[in-house]
Amino acid sequence: MRYIKDLTEGARVGDIYLIKSKSSAVTKNGKNYLNLTLQDKTGTIDGKVWDPNSAGIDEFEEKEYVEIVGDVSSFNGALQVSVKRARIAHEGEYDSKDYLPVSAKDVDSMYKELLDIIDRTGNEYLKRLLQSFFIDDEKFIARFKFSSAAKMVHHAFVGGLLEHTLSVTKNCIFFAAQYPRLDRDLLVTAAICHDIGKTVELSPFPDNDYTDEGNLLGHIVMGTQMVDEKIRSIDGFPSVLATELKHCILAHHGEYEFGSPKKPALIEAVALNFADDIDAKMETFSELLDKSQNPNDWQGFNRLLDSNIRGTRLG
Amino acid sequence: MRYIKDLTEGARVGDIYLIKSKSSAVTKNGKNYLNLTLQDKTGTIDGKVWDPNSAGIDEFEEKEYVEIVGDVSSFNGALQVSVKRARIAHEGEYDSKDYLPVSAKDVDSMYKELLDIIDRTGNEYLKRLLQSFFIDDEKFIARFKFSSAAKMVHHAFVGGLLEHTLSVTKNCIFFAAQYPRLDRDLLVTAAICHDIGKTVELSPFPDNDYTDEGNLLGHIVMGTQMVDEKIRSIDGFPSVLATELKHCILAHHGEYEFGSPKKPALIEAVALNFADDIDAKMETFSELLDKSQNPNDWQGFNRLLDSNIRGTRLG
Amino acid sequence: MRYIKDLTEGARVGDIYLIKSKSSAVTKNGKNYLNLTLQDKTGTIDGKVWDPNSAGIDEFEEKEYVEIVGDVSSFNGALQVSVKRARIAHEGEYDSKDYLPVSAKDVDSMYKELLDIIDRTGNEYLKRLLQSFFIDDEKFIARFKFSSAAKMVHHAFVGGLLEHTLSVTKNCIFFAAQYPRLDRDLLVTAAICHDIGKTVELSPFPDNDYTDEGNLLGHIVMGTQMVDEKIRSIDGFPSVLATELKHCILAHHGEYEFGSPKKPALIEAVALNFADDIDAKMETFSELLDKSQNPNDWQGFNRLLDSNIRGTRLG
Amino acid sequence: MRYIKDLTEGARVGDIYLIKSKSSAVTKNGKNYLNLTLQDKTGTIDGKVWDPNSAGIDEFEEKEYVEIVGDVSSFNGALQVSVKRARIAHEGEYDSKDYLPVSAKDVDSMYKELLDIIDRTGNEYLKRLLQSFFIDDEKFIARFKFSSAAKMVHHAFVGGLLEHTLSVTKNCIFFAAQYPRLDRDLLVTAAICHDIGKTVELSPFPDNDYTDEGNLLGHIVMGTQMVDEKIRSIDGFPSVLATELKHCILAHHGEYEFGSPKKPALIEAVALNFADDIDAKMETFSELLDKSQNPNDWQGFNRLLDSNIRGTRLG
Amino acid sequence: MRYIKDLTEGARVGDIYLIKSKSSAVTKNGKNYLNLTLQDKTGTIDGKVWDPNSAGIDEFEEKEYVEIVGDVSSFNGALQVSVKRARIAHEGEYDSKDYLPVSAKDVDSMYKELLDIIDRTGNEYLKRLLQSFFIDDEKFIARFKFSSAAKMVHHAFVGGLLEHTLSVTKNCIFFAAQYPRLDRDLLVTAAICHDIGKTVELSPFPDNDYTDEGNLLGHIVMGTQMVDEKIRSIDGFPSVLATELKHCILAHHGEYEFGSPKKPALIEAVALNFADDIDAKMETFSELLDKSQNPNDWQGFNRLLDSNIRGTRLG
Amino acid sequence: MRYIKDLTEGARVGDIYLIKSKSSAVTKNGKNYLNLTLQDKTGTIDGKVWDPNSAGIDEFEEKEYVEIVGDVSSFNGALQVSVKRARIAHEGEYDSKDYLPVSAKDVDSMYKELLDIIDRTGNEYLKRLLQSFFIDDEKFIARFKFSSAAKMVHHAFVGGLLEHTLSVTKNCIFFAAQYPRLDRDLLVTAAICHDIGKTVELSPFPDNDYTDEGNLLGHIVMGTQMVDEKIRSIDGFPSVLATELKHCILAHHGEYEFGSPKKPALIEAVALNFADDIDAKMETFSELLDKSQNPNDWQGFNRLLDSNIRGTRLG
Repeated sequence: MRYIKDLTEGARVGDIYLIKSKSSAVTKNGKNYLNLTLQDKTGTIDGKVWDPNSAGIDEFEEKEYVEIVGDVSSFNGALQVSVKRARIAHEGEYDSKDYLPVSAKDVDSMYKELLDIIDRTGNEYLKRLLQSFFIDDEKFIARFKFSSAAKMVHHAFVGGLLEHTLSVTKNCIFFAAQYPRLDRDLLVTAAICHDIGKTVELSPFPDNDYTDEGNLLGHIVMGTQMVDEKIRSIDGFPSVLATELKHCILAHHGEYEFGSPKKPALIEAVALNFADDIDAKMETFSELLDKSQNPNDWQGFNRLLDSNIRGTRLG
Repeated sequence: MRYIKDLTEGARVGDIYLIKSKSSAVTKNGKNYLNLTLQDKTGTIDGKVWDPNSAGIDEFEEKEYVEIVGDVSSFNGALQVSVKRARIAHEGEYDSKDYLPVSAKDVDSMYKELLDIIDRTGNEYLKRLLQSFFIDDEKFIARFKFSSAAKMVHHAFVGGLLEHTLSVTKNCIFFAAQYPRLDRDLLVTAAICHDIGKTVELSPFPDNDYTDEGNLLGHIVMGTQMVDEKIRSIDGFPSVLATELKHCILAHHGEYEFGSPKKPALIEAVALNFADDIDAKMETFSELLDKSQNPNDWQGFNRLLDSNIRGTRLG
Repeated sequence: MRYIKDLTEGARVGDIYLIKSKSSAVTKNGKNYLNLTLQDKTGTIDGKVWDPNSAGIDEFEEKEYVEIVGDVSSFNGALQVSVKRARIAHEGEYDSKDYLPVSAKDVDSMYKELLDIIDRTGNEYLKRLLQSFFIDDEKFIARFKFSSAAKMVHHAFVGGLLEHTLSVTKNCIFFAAQYPRLDRDLLVTAAICHDIGKTVELSPFPDNDYTDEGNLLGHIVMGTQMVDEKIRSIDGFPSVLATELKHCILAHHGEYEFGSPKKPALIEAVALNFADDIDAKMETFSELLDKSQNPNDWQGFNRLLDSNIRGTRLG
Repeated sequence: MRYIKDLTEGARVGDIYLIKSKSSAVTKNGKNYLNLTLQDKTGTIDGKVWDPNSAGIDEFEEKEYVEIVGDVSSFNGALQVSVKRARIAHEGEYDSKDYLPVSAKDVDSMYKELLDIIDRTGNEYLKRLLQSFFIDDEKFIARFKFSSAAKMVHHAFVGGLLEHTLSVTKNCIFFAAQYPRLDRDLLVTAAICHDIGKTVELSPFPDNDYTDEGNLLGHIVMGTQMVDEKIRSIDGFPSVLATELKHCILAHHGEYEFGSPKKPALIEAVALNFADDIDAKMETFSELLDKSQNPNDWQGFNRLLDSNIRGTRLG
Repeated sequence: MRYIKDLTEGARVGDIYLIKSKSSAVTKNGKNYLNLTLQDKTGTIDGKVWDPNSAGIDEFEEKEYVEIVGDVSSFNGALQVSVKRARIAHEGEYDSKDYLPVSAKDVDSMYKELLDIIDRTGNEYLKRLLQSFFIDDEKFIARFKFSSAAKMVHHAFVGGLLEHTLSVTKNCIFFAAQYPRLDRDLLVTAAICHDIGKTVELSPFPDNDYTDEGNLLGHIVMGTQMVDEKIRSIDGFPSVLATELKHCILAHHGEYEFGSPKKPALIEAVALNFADDIDAKMETFSELLDKSQNPNDWQGFNRLLDSNIRGTRLG
Repeated sequence: MRYIKDLTEGARVGDIYLIKSKSSAVTKNGKNYLNLTLQDKTGTIDGKVWDPNSAGIDEFEEKEYVEIVGDVSSFNGALQVSVKRARIAHEGEYDSKDYLPVSAKDVDSMYKELLDIIDRTGNEYLKRLLQSFFIDDEKFIARFKFSSAAKMVHHAFVGGLLEHTLSVTKNCIFFAAQYPRLDRDLLVTAAICHDIGKTVELSPFPDNDYTDEGNLLGHIVMGTQMVDEKIRSIDGFPSVLATELKHCILAHHGEYEFGSPKKPALIEAVALNFADDIDAKMETFSELLDKSQNPNDWQGFNRLLDSNIRGTRLG
């Protein structure tokens, strides 16, 4: 497959792309045409279907994988594809991984690392709870590994939820070693579960957008409820422990204004809030610099970091 | 029974009272004694047990009903009871209603009014949901009718939760008639369910204080979960309707800072927030004036109303 | 008259329209032309005067009613009128109601309903005050019935002030029945008068924009002063009642940050603030959904409601 | 007269004092007595009437001037007067200035200074407006000269309103000279009128407390209305000038949260807000240091200044 | 020199201009060209170099002074210069004052006025400190006189820092005369030094933008450190006085949210904050009206003044 | 030495204590006596000197070490010492460590750990800077090891600054390993230096209170300046590195409202803010539970944690 980032003026295109967006438009002469955005994992390129009703142009919709034949030209300094033929591709003809942003880390290795941590949980009830999600529930596992951790700000790629969860969990393991008042098992379990609601708050890729339920209920409450359901299936799960774990999840955004209905009242809830927040901020900062042409220059104001930022120069 | 508000200096006491508080103290001469607060539904009075180890003084604890024999005297302008004998009363010897603040309205009449409203719910799924709480679940019904709507601010009496719920529901019925965009059934169901989590957030009277679970999870999330559980037992309950109902409950405090993890996104959620808020403010204002010696004078700053207030004089 | 919403490509236009906006522009070839926005009550359409100095084109200004002759064409997917002739229309040739947004409800019926409410006011002083505005003061009545309740957010149409006032008043009548601490006469009078300052804060249609005085003083203070003046003309109006009524008007926005110089300190002021606020929010929400193509989808963030919103689906 | 600050243990008292507060109490032995606070301009002292019903003790109320005969003793390190005789004093027997906090500056000199400034106002309409208050309206003049500028924070003494007004006006005269965009006459007139509403917001000394009208309407709105009334009596007063002047008064607190219903929109309104604010802060700071035993040490947190403060040492 | 504001369509240009911005672009036909913005002190004009590689077009960069030969034409209603020749000018060929926004006041007169104030400082240590900056340190003096007081909001011109500093200092001299608690020498010294950090926070004209150090440390901390260094070179400078002076500089923004790490705790710090703030607001307001075509109309919302504003009409 | 926590009623005291507070008082009979608070590292006890002028009672002041002879009695349920003799102790007679709260960890071990970290710093300039403080500057080292990290909230004991600094530094070392964008040397150096200003913001024990300079300038600015001075003495220290390090220190409180004049703009500044904040919160939470009688019950609202808190029960 020839990736979008490698296309040049004058090239001929003949590959399957994901249709990121599609809209109708009218030329000054009153002729209808289609504006497309073609996507693969290396980026996007504009497409124009100047003759939408011609023979070779099948009907297709946004989010579909479509085989495109056409020519690359340059307009106002940007490349675009004049689409001659368009045909919906069948499953099997393409590998969706080629079309979606993905974690730079290997999903299976990360998942194995998470299972190792689960295996080292001392409290039997918490361990069984984690296993009921991450070992027994295949549908959940598939969705968890495929999810992002956010629509846009940070970890907005396939595997992002797993990568973020693992990183927050490692932060918590470190904190539990540093601060003896912290209960390691409760904290680690809360860390692993803190964002599981995101598997239902966001729709799967290539969409990766808020679901209706996500908009109305939010991942904090949905995740808490998912934990609650699994706990009911575990005989003898201590009720205070269940309440404390759910509290940690409810309070993990730390402030009412960030959507937590309770402020952290347990020391593990305080620690989880920090572990989550620093991972989000470190990743956001790093992604911004990674994408920047001049990471050591001022990057402008960033809303999450609430500051103008720049990469460190050291001298 | 002789009520506390009718006791006068020199009287002899011989009745059962609720022990609101109890603490040990030492006189200047180094003698131990007990400070009590005796309570019935008309008020409280201080009690002193000058000789805690004497024959007639049984062991008892806070929150117990105790038969007190003693004399009323005046100290620093306030009445107090010198306790001569104290004996724990058995269930049956007293009626707890005589000892607790109660709604001025009849609980059973209010409950009947609520059932009539439930009966008029058009949507079958919502109706069945309401019935599953208010007709089928006897333990829930008992607790709901006995609960207050708050620890202190307003409706802090037996029957208070029912009174507040009924009043909010009536506001919603009126709004649904005024504003045609509102779905009456959804709004009324949300109104009836909005505070059911308070039955577990607050402990039963005479305690009426935050439970551990109440502190850690809060009535908004607990109530949403209670609704969710009942819905699961109703075959075919539409999932979008379930989500919309749960959203209304989650969002009923209207603002993140008041503990709602979501802002109202449906018009019914907006209306419910108003219906709840105005009832809380009207009741708070009314209770303050009812309790005041000079309701038409300035009452000082009230935190909920965020203002110095006074009763209206009209002229 | 042929309404703007019914115009189609290729049609010939020959009707009077309100000139909503007018500006000069220059073509790439350096030729002057005019950009117009033509308005009637069904919407707006762009107009182009390609030859402003030709014989048939009279001089005219924004906000004038102008007879337009021209042809409808399509450009970039939108319709526009190429104006051949333009002539200022005389009063009498057009009915301004055809050119302005109007309440869906009948203004005279609403006005009659308001008069009935005034007639049922028990307190003689308050009744006389209301009559001095709504029965005796013809200039005020005319302006009141013609005003909107806002420049943009909600009720921004002819009759909007009356519609909003009546709705707020009905909310107050209901609250007065629900909450016995409320004085019905004071509350209803305050409701009817709460926004009368808008008759001078906003200029009459078709302008409907903030006046200079409106910008510098605001409808809250101007309305309070209008009430104060009428009260002075009523012998024996009790001074405390006058102060309480003015307080309700001053405090009806509920918060300093919304322009009330006093927080509600009387229970009627609290109730009026709610009655006003819920009407504004219900109407804003309803107007948004009414105008939306897909009211049951997410509509995006709304500033007044401070949330992303969607219409209720129920299933 | 022997001032309170000069009383010592063992002295005999025989002078007229203002009764700042009076309350009944009961001794441990059940005897009624009266607690008094006696006041003159140098301070206060506790008084006890151990035998309220004895022959020499007349009936009297708070805020009355009473001739007190009694002995000064010391209790718990503080002085108090055992009152033997008490008799209400007649007007003429005392000079209220001896009993009230007063400006350190001469009220008549300050008033003359204000009249000179009024005399130098160039705009005839504004000058006539100022004269209608400060030359023609004797009742207003008497109240203005006797008022404080606040209940407690700063200038809380007889003459305080005049002193503050004059100081703010001088600040404005300076600003008008510094910043040519400022209209001197408008700014100076607004400065002189900005707090005239305080003559009705606060009751006269010795009370100096918020009036009912003051609580419900506030000096900002009341002062604006007083200006409005005088303007109506001046033929030909330009209406835009009237609106601009009223705007300056409405906006002089600068922020909604401080009770201004409008933010400063004219440059004179901005300047007046500064002139007022700095005078309040300078006076508050100065009064705090003047009253302090150790002005050069840290004085603790002050709410108006929103900081812990200390006097400047310079070295 | 022919100023930009005097250029008209069809004119031939042949003067030196400052290149404010320069960027490459591509025509629809795929031809490279350059977009320029040419600047002198009267304004800016667009320039196009249609043939960047032709003989007469030298290489040049942004911020350079370049002799431009070309023709003025009109495009879409705006003028632009078609550049035929471009040559970098040598120092001496142009006077940078012709190309930069400058204070309307004479820099040397203002500087002399400042020196006179310094000369009248009574405290010997403070006087020596001021002299060490404004008499002894030539590099500092040059930079101080050339600096603006801000990147954009107000005093954003050559000499702006001096003009603002002098005006703030005069405000302080007036306040010191009005409020006897203020120490004139400390206050005046703090006023003169309060913004000296701006000489390093902003780069010199024509750039006048935040430096890297300015972004990371800010003029408040940098200015405090500059004062600290000079003080170390003055034998016997009292340490408390040094701390008090540095406090005034640190606290001169008045609020944490405006970047002051300490709230004003000394009365001089309070006064300096006002003197600075009112000068910034008066200048911002005046500059807005000066630049406006219709200063007496509403100018729209201004962020610093936090209000819609208009010029005063007076009637 | 017999520690205060071991004293019982009836005991005879004969040891040296630190006089935490001392004040004069008068008995009801008019006799002068002294109220003392005696302190050692285990707690405090009240003391009474009933006869301050008797032979055995020397003059002494607060903060002095005094040998006390007396008897322990009980009053109102609390113990107190009736002081018979009091004599100021000479240096050498007591060990101040017995009288002050101290870190539970060994100061010298922690210091060694810090030196090891410094030794592993790769960047030569940063290493030399750290050595110039922690190896070369003996006065600084002594003060640093003896300081607390706060007046009250957390780490308010001897060695507290070192303990907090070491813990923050370890957090930073972990973060640097987790997040590759972080420069370990810069982050670790900033961590070690972030609170060095506290050595001058707080006075030495037993006082441990804000110094005058601390109140006026604060540890953030003072610490930045201390770093700046050392850097000047290091030849060739890169200026950008110096600025970046100082930025990290200035921004380490993360928000303007917490006294940072700059928001974190470098990723190391973001990380340091988290490392510091979590250590403060973990220690505050732990100290509260450590001191509590019932750590697993609700502890009430804590201002720093902005929540009611309780210890975790787990089941």
